[in-house]
Amino acid sequence: MRIDLNSDLGEGFGPWTMGDDAAMLDIVSTANIACGFHAGDPDIMRETVQLAKQRGVAIGAHPGYMDLIGFGRRRLPGLSLSEVETLVAYQVGALAAVAALEGHRMTHVKTHGALGNVCADDDDMALAVGRAIKAVDPKLAFMVMPGTATARAADVLGLTPINEIYADRTYADTFNLSPRSERGSVIHDPELLVKRVIEMVSQGCLTSTSGKRLDVPIGSVCVHGDTPGAVGMARQLREALEKAGWVIGSSA
Amino acid sequence: MRIDLNSDLGEGFGPWTMGDDAAMLDIVSTANIACGFHAGDPDIMRETVQLAKQRGVAIGAHPGYMDLIGFGRRRLPGLSLSEVETLVAYQVGALAAVAALEGHRMTHVKTHGALGNVCADDDDMALAVGRAIKAVDPKLAFMVMPGTATARAADVLGLTPINEIYADRTYADTFNLSPRSERGSVIHDPELLVKRVIEMVSQGCLTSTSGKRLDVPIGSVCVHGDTPGAVGMARQLREALEKAGWVIGSSA
Amino acid sequence: MRIDLNSDLGEGFGPWTMGDDAAMLDIVSTANIACGFHAGDPDIMRETVQLAKQRGVAIGAHPGYMDLIGFGRRRLPGLSLSEVETLVAYQVGALAAVAALEGHRMTHVKTHGALGNVCADDDDMALAVGRAIKAVDPKLAFMVMPGTATARAADVLGLTPINEIYADRTYADTFNLSPRSERGSVIHDPELLVKRVIEMVSQGCLTSTSGKRLDVPIGSVCVHGDTPGAVGMARQLREALEKAGWVIGSSA
Amino acid sequence: MRIDLNSDLGEGFGPWTMGDDAAMLDIVSTANIACGFHAGDPDIMRETVQLAKQRGVAIGAHPGYMDLIGFGRRRLPGLSLSEVETLVAYQVGALAAVAALEGHRMTHVKTHGALGNVCADDDDMALAVGRAIKAVDPKLAFMVMPGTATARAADVLGLTPINEIYADRTYADTFNLSPRSERGSVIHDPELLVKRVIEMVSQGCLTSTSGKRLDVPIGSVCVHGDTPGAVGMARQLREALEKAGWVIGSSA
Repeated sequence: MRIDLNSDLGEGFGPWTMGDDAAMLDIVSTANIACGFHAGDPDIMRETVQLAKQRGVAIGAHPGYMDLIGFGRRRLPGLSLSEVETLVAYQVGALAAVAALEGHRMTHVKTHGALGNVCADDDDMALAVGRAIKAVDPKLAFMVMPGTATARAADVLGLTPINEIYADRTYADTFNLSPRSERGSVIHDPELLVKRVIEMVSQGCLTSTSGKRLDVPIGSVCVHGDTPGAVGMARQLREALEKAGWVIGSSA
Repeated sequence: MRIDLNSDLGEGFGPWTMGDDAAMLDIVSTANIACGFHAGDPDIMRETVQLAKQRGVAIGAHPGYMDLIGFGRRRLPGLSLSEVETLVAYQVGALAAVAALEGHRMTHVKTHGALGNVCADDDDMALAVGRAIKAVDPKLAFMVMPGTATARAADVLGLTPINEIYADRTYADTFNLSPRSERGSVIHDPELLVKRVIEMVSQGCLTSTSGKRLDVPIGSVCVHGDTPGAVGMARQLREALEKAGWVIGSSA
Repeated sequence: MRIDLNSDLGEGFGPWTMGDDAAMLDIVSTANIACGFHAGDPDIMRETVQLAKQRGVAIGAHPGYMDLIGFGRRRLPGLSLSEVETLVAYQVGALAAVAALEGHRMTHVKTHGALGNVCADDDDMALAVGRAIKAVDPKLAFMVMPGTATARAADVLGLTPINEIYADRTYADTFNLSPRSERGSVIHDPELLVKRVIEMVSQGCLTSTSGKRLDVPIGSVCVHGDTPGAVGMARQLREALEKAGWVIGSSA
Repeated sequence: MRIDLNSDLGEGFGPWTMGDDAAMLDIVSTANIACGFHAGDPDIMRETVQLAKQRGVAIGAHPGYMDLIGFGRRRLPGLSLSEVETLVAYQVGALAAVAALEGHRMTHVKTHGALGNVCADDDDMALAVGRAIKAVDPKLAFMVMPGTATARAADVLGLTPINEIYADRTYADTFNLSPRSERGSVIHDPELLVKRVIEMVSQGCLTSTSGKRLDVPIGSVCVHGDTPGAVGMARQLREALEKAGWVIGSSA
């Protein structure tokens, strides 16, 4: 009865902050750290690594498209598989080095934003990301969305998968996230959110909005910290999981 | 009788190129590759690694300040030792990862531009760079300017030094380069340039413009490729060295 | 018998140059100057304005998407009409101010790269660009592609159009450029290029590759300066036009 | 009995915000808007202009060094007078154009951060900024620090000055701000802050920490909105001024 809570952190840039990283690092067991392309800069990366290490929180690289002003949320057109390999390797290598400075060890990689969305649906792109991870360090885990191209890529390449679910989102029949534009796709009710997460981790399954079911062991639950009330919601989830007998800890 | 020729390459950005990298890679035995902060981008880094590997040219990271528009030539104020450690580690790690994608191995690190100038004179900064190199991989060599703070830092930290001289520059009594503003500090006459380099590598010494002498084994000679006539000059130097019985090859 | 030759100039960034602007400014009568979003920086803009003024060359703003690494050639997704208005206004205003420093006057605006391609086909986007131009200065001309959405936008908004043709490209039936991927769409043969341009400007018409004809007075001919041989080709065209009795001069 | 309150706003970038602009725009009568070099982007500029116009708040350009990651707070070395002219003109022109889109009018220019600090002490730099303002529009006011090089530059160039004081800072004998590193140089006590401001605007004078007095009509009081408690402090100051019989309104 052990489950990982992860969050995307280190998403400031220069003088700007996003969310309350220190508070989130007291709640989660794994931090996915932005690597300077869509957010983050070397100093913020190092500070986030340091805060994570102090709390025994596992860290991974959270590479995204080179799109600071768009926060990596835009599907940049025209990127080849080779270019995606390169931008992922660059970012993963950069975080590995910054982590080394702090004597902390990177355990995994999770794609950010539009890169993540593309990779959930496109096997070739997911494989490109996976090859980049493997080239840097084949022992790195690939945090994937079960049932999607990222999970298949981890399997094909022999990378350890971390099956991730989103605490506050519903699923389409592809087991990619339902689009935010769809009514009800983002769950704001804390009770409903907690209930769903406990069901998914206990039963080891995802259920799509149309009722399609995917049986899969859940490795990690993503909680967000960058919106109002998000920290409180994450804390509530952690407490509910612990009350239900779960131990929060990284899978690394 | 073996000597390394190195050049700073991969200094384009996006659609822009600088110098003729392919021509230089047919001349030198070592390439110092820009890592995206003052020049270079992930795709250019990868392409440069690939071209180097095809020719058996050794590669190293060439980190600089985060200053694209200033090409890393401005002494950015206010950077702490910790910030310098971080920016060097980030860039070295990024190139290591891109090199891994191409199955090539990084052998060393050389600082670029203003960062290099600062480190030649400032022991604390040189040590910060050295610590970053060591944290990423203690087997990486540190390409240093003999007689300066970079050489001392390599020694203190136990990093393998590569003693570098500049083919086209004269030396001050600190064995840092004479400022470009000083008359005669940049050597444009190919015959004089060749004569000086052969003297330095043969005798294992540097001589300052005032006649001060530093006895030191020379590990590598830096040639530039980004100015008109530079490629021709580099080729001439290589041919003269070979005629004088030297074998051109990286020290790695 | 007066015709304008224009070229896209000032496309360097920081230490990087693109093409031979000084040579092109001796050939053309109008310079479209990059404004720092896809290429160009404030100092390069000013230097280009200065060189243009010295030669009596008219200047215009050449705004593009905010995409330095992609050189404005990628169709960035998700930009609203309002965002396009804003990015065009920003860039046009910036060049107007830099031109004022040099006592030169901006005469027109021409969109760059992917922004231009989008605007040729999309009336709403072309109108957004036109509104931005008009807000900054309603006396600025809009350099348009005859027969496309940009020409319609100039008409609707009451902006003076400059009907532009491309010396080295063929036209689709929409009178947008044939895609570069199409065989023969880029004309490399100088004789053919000269012959086509003289036909178009003499007869006041464009002909698509399938033979569709658009009768329209030609205001300006675009020549490129950023590829090998481009400067020579541009000079050849100018000389041929002059020999055929045309006076080269801006329409401003 | 009319006094202007100004604040530096629009200091977000892309997905990042800084301070609570909407709250500050309900308090101040003038907004100095970042122009994209040290903070701000075209869309944020436009949104800030819009919010200001809705509230009848006057707007000015707030140009800074091109240094996003350093927030314009670092004294970039090596910038020539001409480069400073250019970067100021570019930013002022950009905001003028964005303001035009919203039908709002820019009234003035105030330098940001390190550029402002340099200009308070360096007459040549202050004149370079003044020339840029004048080239763009000689009717623009120059918000200056009384007694410093910026005030002298406005005088020499015939630009309308707006004499600005800082609500929460003390003054050195040069009438530049006391360095933040100096104990007591930043005033945190609301009562003391209010008392000092009312004294300065009522008596038309600044007093340095050593007691040196400069008699000068105060045109505007700068309040900050980007630190915790800042909005509350600004509101308190406004209320105290109104209670003391002052009408808050821009000098434009």
